[in-house]
Amino acid sequence: MAKNTRSIEERLQALEDREAIAQAVCGYGYAMDGCNAPAVGSFYAEDGVYAVADVGAFEGRPAVEAITRRETHLGLVHAGCAHISTPPYIVLDGDDAVATCHTMVAMHGENGFFVGRLSASRIQLQRQADGAWRIRHRQNYMLDGDPRGPAMLARLKEGRSLHEGK
Amino acid sequence: MAKNTRSIEERLQALEDREAIAQAVCGYGYAMDGCNAPAVGSFYAEDGVYAVADVGAFEGRPAVEAITRRETHLGLVHAGCAHISTPPYIVLDGDDAVATCHTMVAMHGENGFFVGRLSASRIQLQRQADGAWRIRHRQNYMLDGDPRGPAMLARLKEGRSLHEGK
Amino acid sequence: MAKNTRSIEERLQALEDREAIAQAVCGYGYAMDGCNAPAVGSFYAEDGVYAVADVGAFEGRPAVEAITRRETHLGLVHAGCAHISTPPYIVLDGDDAVATCHTMVAMHGENGFFVGRLSASRIQLQRQADGAWRIRHRQNYMLDGDPRGPAMLARLKEGRSLHEGK
Repeated sequence: MAKNTRSIEERLQALEDREAIAQAVCGYGYAMDGCNAPAVGSFYAEDGVYAVADVGAFEGRPAVEAITRRETHLGLVHAGCAHISTPPYIVLDGDDAVATCHTMVAMHGENGFFVGRLSASRIQLQRQADGAWRIRHRQNYMLDGDPRGPAMLARLKEGRSLHEGK
Repeated sequence: MAKNTRSIEERLQALEDREAIAQAVCGYGYAMDGCNAPAVGSFYAEDGVYAVADVGAFEGRPAVEAITRRETHLGLVHAGCAHISTPPYIVLDGDDAVATCHTMVAMHGENGFFVGRLSASRIQLQRQADGAWRIRHRQNYMLDGDPRGPAMLARLKEGRSLHEGK
Repeated sequence: MAKNTRSIEERLQALEDREAIAQAVCGYGYAMDGCNAPAVGSFYAEDGVYAVADVGAFEGRPAVEAITRRETHLGLVHAGCAHISTPPYIVLDGDDAVATCHTMVAMHGENGFFVGRLSASRIQLQRQADGAWRIRHRQNYMLDGDPRGPAMLARLKEGRSLHEGK
């Protein structure tokens, strides 16, 4: 049991890191549904990238924050929607981490609620200078038959690769 | 990094608090789907309130527990349902906390499963005399176009307001 | 507050245990959607059992891993699917634990995404010789009116029973 060689401080820090990472992953969705741009931005690094395979890449915190003002997003919010991230599986490595989860956008329409989008997500986070964990790169693939989604989920136990994203 | 000024005891306590709060939030749904009234009640303060915008307010633990015996609830359970709370974003402040999440009720009908309800939730909890965290006030707004849902989600980083609910 | 009688080491260990258990519960789904058999197997004990009431029991790690190669599973993955576990309610008791959650399989079809399966899950885990928490027995009941699902969810606060499963 490797953990017995770690100090109380190291073990506590690792738990705090995992908690903070999980909060950034889930908090992003609530901030997005609330169209709270500063809160959305607080979860992303200044140069963070949100890469949505079927939509495009939002590069930099201002671009991610601006999603809250897009017509397509406002249309979803006005009709009723929930950007849901499932509990993330986290690989922690010092000041870097990779979180794997599903993201589901449940929506409201004329016939009630429905699952509008369903994606695989691989999220690279980093501990920043102020101690906060923020997203550096998030890759989403729709789970609609695109083989890149399952291929990315299969890597849940892999930490950050040298040449991956940022 | 503010946390470095906190003691091991304080940091450990904060992690335990967050874990206990998350358990109360998710446990409530399983207890409700199992029609286990005492378990439902164990997550609510004696004078706790569950305010469902489109249904009404259930005031006090006995009223919340009694949901398990309502005809509408039993109908859902007999047909098949899951009261799901997504991972909560938690603002912790001493003996008080606010948790923000989505709640989804997935149901079973003639044509299979469907998303029957989808709400925004803002949950105020308090550490009680016995050390347990319990819900003092929970506000739900259906995410069906009601603008109060997104407005409430936008407050995910705000702690308890002086005049909010209880 | 019983916890004040516990040492820092005991409290830290309990938090690490809960974190590891939650990771095994959610990680399983991502591994399954990624058809990553070794990752799936890593969450199950050598003699672990995955009992799906309406399908049958998969007994032993190799049988659970082999689900990733089943035609029915590959069909879901190729069409697009997400095996989602909701945040687990955990009863921890030394080297044993029971986690209660819902499991939902969201799928993709001709008319978009839909909730294909929705189950109640009761998952018994054990700390193994290498220190890792693994699943010894997982029972799923479809939430389609089968009364065993709600009856099992009602037991969310019960630890492992002597004669339950393994």
